[in-house]
Amino acid sequence: MRTIQTAPSQAKVSESNRSRILHHLFRNGISSRAQISKALGLTPAAITKITARLLDAGIIEETGDIEGDKNRRSIGLRLDESLFHFIGVKFARSLVQIGVFDLAGTCIVLRDLPTVTNDTIPTTIRLVHARVTALIAADSRIVAVGMAVPGPYLRTIGRTVLVSSMRAWREVNFLSEFKHAFSVPVFIEQDARAGALANYLFDRGSSCANLAYYLIGEGVGLGVIDNGALVNGMMGAATELGHISIDIHGRPCECGNVGCLERYCSAVVIHEAIVSRDLVPDARQLGHAEACNALFQLADTGDARARLMVEEIGRYAGFGCVTIINGYNPERIVIGDIVAQGGQRLLHSIREIVDEHVTPALRDSTTIALSTLHSDAVVCGAAAVAIIYFLDRPSMFFDVSAASSSPDVPKRQHNQ
Amino acid sequence: MRTIQTAPSQAKVSESNRSRILHHLFRNGISSRAQISKALGLTPAAITKITARLLDAGIIEETGDIEGDKNRRSIGLRLDESLFHFIGVKFARSLVQIGVFDLAGTCIVLRDLPTVTNDTIPTTIRLVHARVTALIAADSRIVAVGMAVPGPYLRTIGRTVLVSSMRAWREVNFLSEFKHAFSVPVFIEQDARAGALANYLFDRGSSCANLAYYLIGEGVGLGVIDNGALVNGMMGAATELGHISIDIHGRPCECGNVGCLERYCSAVVIHEAIVSRDLVPDARQLGHAEACNALFQLADTGDARARLMVEEIGRYAGFGCVTIINGYNPERIVIGDIVAQGGQRLLHSIREIVDEHVTPALRDSTTIALSTLHSDAVVCGAAAVAIIYFLDRPSMFFDVSAASSSPDVPKRQHNQ
Repeated sequence: MRTIQTAPSQAKVSESNRSRILHHLFRNGISSRAQISKALGLTPAAITKITARLLDAGIIEETGDIEGDKNRRSIGLRLDESLFHFIGVKFARSLVQIGVFDLAGTCIVLRDLPTVTNDTIPTTIRLVHARVTALIAADSRIVAVGMAVPGPYLRTIGRTVLVSSMRAWREVNFLSEFKHAFSVPVFIEQDARAGALANYLFDRGSSCANLAYYLIGEGVGLGVIDNGALVNGMMGAATELGHISIDIHGRPCECGNVGCLERYCSAVVIHEAIVSRDLVPDARQLGHAEACNALFQLADTGDARARLMVEEIGRYAGFGCVTIINGYNPERIVIGDIVAQGGQRLLHSIREIVDEHVTPALRDSTTIALSTLHSDAVVCGAAAVAIIYFLDRPSMFFDVSAASSSPDVPKRQHNQ
Repeated sequence: MRTIQTAPSQAKVSESNRSRILHHLFRNGISSRAQISKALGLTPAAITKITARLLDAGIIEETGDIEGDKNRRSIGLRLDESLFHFIGVKFARSLVQIGVFDLAGTCIVLRDLPTVTNDTIPTTIRLVHARVTALIAADSRIVAVGMAVPGPYLRTIGRTVLVSSMRAWREVNFLSEFKHAFSVPVFIEQDARAGALANYLFDRGSSCANLAYYLIGEGVGLGVIDNGALVNGMMGAATELGHISIDIHGRPCECGNVGCLERYCSAVVIHEAIVSRDLVPDARQLGHAEACNALFQLADTGDARARLMVEEIGRYAGFGCVTIINGYNPERIVIGDIVAQGGQRLLHSIREIVDEHVTPALRDSTTIALSTLHSDAVVCGAAAVAIIYFLDRPSMFFDVSAASSSPDVPKRQHNQ
């Protein structure tokens, strides 16, 4: 038993079927109406009707003949992934990135904003407004903006309640800043959850319905897809792995808890340790990501103290994996962000802890891997947050309720 | 964004609509067709058709006239909760309980089996077979059996992989033992998840879509309903709170992990501490529940050492709540089972820890309460596991696909 009350209202069934067809084309590429009908259990008449509207609205297109079952030729339908672009904005603590991606998650543009400090957050917000507005003006294929922000992010309120080490982010209300700021809809999600969506949508070779994205960056976060749905919590503040304690006698955290995982293996904490252990020259002047990368390079060259420190980070990160497995039982844990650059050496230490601390039946059925997405999973995931809405609720973007008199015109004025 | 791919196949829509009508009647009591139509957004024609089949199959019945909107009289429809009975079987470590419940969760029969030891498990299993068979033979209203077993329970395999302190339970394959053992369908779920279902279904005054049931009994477990759906994990082994570490330098656990919450506040551990501290006379001879109850009574009479111990238990249980909030962000945490008998004194200590260790926005939006169900939430929850199937998938129990020639005859031979 998985779902308690699954049934959608009758009114949502049409949108659901549209969405299922879009998901099918997204996952499977060019397909004939007969193939879609067979795969989804919808009648040929329903497929004909729904695809006619999607064709009219310019969301999908017909291709030439393709080979169908029993060598019969039939017309193919395609969701052209290059036709729709999505902006992804990643807000980390000191790093804000803006990218443009197509529907397949291919990165078209990616720019870092100047390093953010506690004092330059208002400037950064203004810059995000200007850059996103300019990108939308320059690219008519852009249909939505997705944003990824550090958790715990209260989705109905629009604030991230706790950004350890950079308090001023708490003053930003992302909803009131951005929800109606542009000519296309804006969608906002907790960062690691965006990373989970990116892996779910774009890593098609290994996509599975029970997936955890374990973000170890300036903060430590987690996004979990359980049976195809994100675990959100009442206010969107679930899966806050960074603030789950691994030691009730441990280091105090700004959240009020003690021994929070984030206090042991975030890039911020690692950077502090690199400075205090004097492992990297002038480490204090580096950004968190640069300092971590310098450490990982040093370990690769054979420096014993650097290797010990990477192993130590791996052990703490490994205890995070143990909690993920006992807490969410995913099929696959994907580790990403700054600290994942520690590579195989880090992964080895993580797996040693998991092997020792997880009961065999669960250990052996959980894959742990480093993120293999081409770009950062969270900035790509920010776009994925918008793409999921595009696939799930096409009527937010296009007039699909009836044959449209003006095909190809996205409803760009229609905000969330 | 909550669900990634929500749409059911067309073939499931009829069952979904039947289920929605049953859920509506279950939640709202007697309703007219017009009221159901309005509440669910289904057309009057669809309501007429579906309810005709449910009436034919004997699942619902018509009542006399009721007062509808605008003082119009109309015929009421009712899901008579007393007409359908469900057996619930709770397997704890040393305690096995069998109850019969009606659709509203009202307990009709409840019996404990003799205390189980590691050596008497096969005898206990035989006894469960015999008792359940006898109950079904004696009560023609029984339509299904639900079972609740300690986690981590691998639902596809049928085994519970880890029952600390009573290893022999791991030898039992619940699916092969019971799935086809009786003349009615059998459904099996992890114990705390069953408790969450019981609270979701039967505590109607406070039922909410984001609910956690925190079981502190012979083991420590958790069941989470997130946006109306259970968090399961790939194999059904998610939300294993008892094996999430609160101290990576802490006490070793049979699962391989260290510092597992279960090692600090389960009834088994409390019983050991009562014996070693010599708090209760002849404590070694008592069962775990009896020993805990003796401690709680002693605390109520003012014994200072007993009070200190209850507060200590409350602090550990409180750290479990902190993890639940950061991990799942439920609206409501319901604490149940043996240790919940510690009452307000225990709850006070739990809340102190939560107040100190959870960020205010989350702390203030989370209710923490002791279970108020009339009977044990898990044995009642075992029945709820079956009841959810009855409401979600009526076609498993009745012939509802067309007007039936033999109404009122449940498909009792139809196993899961």
